[in-house]
Amino acid sequence: MKNVKVIIWGLGAMGSGMAEMLLKKKGVDIVGVAGRGSKVGKSMYDFLSVERGDRPDVIIGSPEDVITEKAADVVLCCTDSFTKTAFDRLKFVLEKKINVISSAEEMAYPQAQSPELAEKLDEIAKANGVSILGTGINPGLIMDLLVVIMTGCCEEVEHIVSRRVNSLSPFGPAVMEEQGIGITKEEFIDGVRTGKLSGHVGFHESIQMIADAIGWKVDKVTQSMDPIMTDVDRKSPYGFAKAGNVAGCAMKGFGYVDGELKIEMDHPQQIEPEQVGVKTGDYVIIKGTPNINMVNSPEVPGGIGTIAMCVNMIPHIINARPGLHTMLTLPVPRAIMGDLREMISEEAKIVK
Amino acid sequence: MKNVKVIIWGLGAMGSGMAEMLLKKKGVDIVGVAGRGSKVGKSMYDFLSVERGDRPDVIIGSPEDVITEKAADVVLCCTDSFTKTAFDRLKFVLEKKINVISSAEEMAYPQAQSPELAEKLDEIAKANGVSILGTGINPGLIMDLLVVIMTGCCEEVEHIVSRRVNSLSPFGPAVMEEQGIGITKEEFIDGVRTGKLSGHVGFHESIQMIADAIGWKVDKVTQSMDPIMTDVDRKSPYGFAKAGNVAGCAMKGFGYVDGELKIEMDHPQQIEPEQVGVKTGDYVIIKGTPNINMVNSPEVPGGIGTIAMCVNMIPHIINARPGLHTMLTLPVPRAIMGDLREMISEEAKIVK
Repeated sequence: MKNVKVIIWGLGAMGSGMAEMLLKKKGVDIVGVAGRGSKVGKSMYDFLSVERGDRPDVIIGSPEDVITEKAADVVLCCTDSFTKTAFDRLKFVLEKKINVISSAEEMAYPQAQSPELAEKLDEIAKANGVSILGTGINPGLIMDLLVVIMTGCCEEVEHIVSRRVNSLSPFGPAVMEEQGIGITKEEFIDGVRTGKLSGHVGFHESIQMIADAIGWKVDKVTQSMDPIMTDVDRKSPYGFAKAGNVAGCAMKGFGYVDGELKIEMDHPQQIEPEQVGVKTGDYVIIKGTPNINMVNSPEVPGGIGTIAMCVNMIPHIINARPGLHTMLTLPVPRAIMGDLREMISEEAKIVK
Repeated sequence: MKNVKVIIWGLGAMGSGMAEMLLKKKGVDIVGVAGRGSKVGKSMYDFLSVERGDRPDVIIGSPEDVITEKAADVVLCCTDSFTKTAFDRLKFVLEKKINVISSAEEMAYPQAQSPELAEKLDEIAKANGVSILGTGINPGLIMDLLVVIMTGCCEEVEHIVSRRVNSLSPFGPAVMEEQGIGITKEEFIDGVRTGKLSGHVGFHESIQMIADAIGWKVDKVTQSMDPIMTDVDRKSPYGFAKAGNVAGCAMKGFGYVDGELKIEMDHPQQIEPEQVGVKTGDYVIIKGTPNINMVNSPEVPGGIGTIAMCVNMIPHIINARPGLHTMLTLPVPRAIMGDLREMISEEAKIVK
C-alpha cells in the first residue's frame, strides 16, 4: 500500500504542530500545504525549521493550487473555529473528493448550532464518496467524549459535571487577548457584552454531543462567562495580570432536559494557576449507577491535545463510511505508534 | 420500529443483572431467557423477583428451545470466562442469525489467546450476516479501552501503566474461593501452581488490545499472581481473612515490545481494603507526549460495570457490520437513557 497522503490547510500553531507530528510518523507523507500571505512559495520544511532529509520538498501554495481532485487521502483543515466560517472551505475539499478533519471547535458537533450546515456537509460528503469529522481536545475529547465513554459503564445517569481547570500560560498573545488577560473587570464585562472576548468555544457542542449520545433531549443550553480576578501579580510568557485585574476567564455551560439542569460544564482558564494554589485537571463527575469521580491532573495541554487528536483520527476518517461523522460515530481515538498504513483498509484508500 | 428484542443466556449474577437493567429501559423487550437445571420452566419475573406488570411472561427454557432462527436482535451470552469453553455456544447463536454480546473475559479480545477461534467466529458471523462482541468492565473498558482513548490525545506514547485497585467485598462465595480469600499463604501458592485459583482473567486480552490499537508489536506477555496477606482480621459479607492469612490476590501483567517492558497491568484485589488504608481506584498512567495521570476513585464496581457495558453495547453490535468486533472497532460505549430504538439503524434490525 502507498503511504497515506495528507494535505494541511492552515499553518498556524495547530496546523504547524500537526505537520511536525506527522513528519515523525511512519507510512504517511505530507503531500501539500495550503497557506496564505507571505508563507506561499516557501518550503514547508524551512517554515517549520525541520530537516527535509531525502524527502521531496513541499512548497506552501494556495488552496486552489494544492487541493486538487483526489490529491490526498485527507485534508487537515486548521483555519477556523466556527462552522459557518469554515463551511465554504470544507465544501471545497469534499468536492475535490478528499476526506476532511477540521479543527474548528463548532465542527466537533455542528449539529448543535448549525444543523442545516451539518446536513449539507453530510450530503456533500456522501455525494463525493468521502467523509468529514471535526475534532480536537475540547470539544472532541475531554469535556464530552470522555464523559460519554464513562457513562458506558453506568446503568443509569442522573447528572453530569464536566470540569476542565487549565492553565493558559503556554498560550500566545492571541489567546491572551481572546481571554481578556490583564484587562480590568469593567473592560472584561464590556468585552463579553460586545462579543470581543470569545472565551471557550464548544459548550453547545459538548452538551449536545453528550445528550445525543445517551438519549437525553436537551431543551435549553445556556452559558456564562466571568472574569477570574487576581489578588497578586501573575506573569506568563505572553501574559501579565496585575493584582486587581483579570487573570483568566471562567466559563460555565448548562444543559437542561425537561427543564431540569442535567449537564454542567465548568471551565475556568487562567494564567499561572499554580501561583494561587489552583490545581489544574480534567474532571468527569457523574451522578448515576455507579457514580464516576474521575480526574486527570494536570490537564491534557490544549495545544498538543488538539494536534494529536486531529492526526490520530486520520485512519478512522479514511476508513469511515461516507458522510459527516462525529466522535460518537467512529471508533475511539488512539495514538499512532506503528505504521499508519496498517490502520487503513485497502479499499478506503483514496491515493492507491 | 418494533422494540429491540433481547435473549439472555445464563442467569447468574451477570445475566440476572442485565435482565433487571433491561427491564428498566425503553424500547427493548426481553423475549427469551435460556438457563439450566431447576430454573427451566420458571417465570423470569418470579426468578428475578421483578413485577411483571402487563408484560407477557417469559419462561426460562433450554437454549435449543429459546434461541431459534432470528428470534431476537441480540443474545447476551453470560455463561463463560474463556473463549474455548464459550465457542460452541457462540457459534450456536450466530448460526441462528442473531447478534451476540459475550461477557466472557477472553472474548473481549479473543485474538490474544485464541486467534484461530477468533477467525472462525468472524467467518461464522459473516456467513450468517450478524456480528459478535465480547465486553465487560475489565477487560473491556477500565484497563484497556480507557487507556486507548487517552493515548488518542498523545503525540507519542513511551510506557503505559494500567492499575485497578478494587474491593472484593461486594462479591459472593464463588469469587472468594477463586481469589483465595481466607486461605494460608502455602495454600495460595499451591492454588496458583495447580491452577485452582483463577484470579483475574484478562491481562493477555487487555495488553494485546492496547498494543494492537496503537501499533506496538507485543513479543511477550507475562503475568504474576501473589497473595495479599493481612495483618488484621478482615470480614466482608461473604469472605473472612484471619490476620496472617490471605485477604486478596495481587496480579500483575507485563507486555514487552522489542524486548522492552512497555505495558504494565497492576490489579490488586482484596476484601475490605479501606480497613488497612488502601484507597481503591482505576488508574491510567501514560508516559508520553503529553503525560496522562488519570484516576477514577473509588473504582467502577465490577459487577454493575460489566452488566452496564454488555447492555449498553447492544445498539452498537446490532448496527455493526457483520463479523467479529472488539471495543476497538465500534463507537464508544454510552449509557442508554432514552428509547433504545432511536439508537438502532432501521436496516440493521433483525426483528422488523
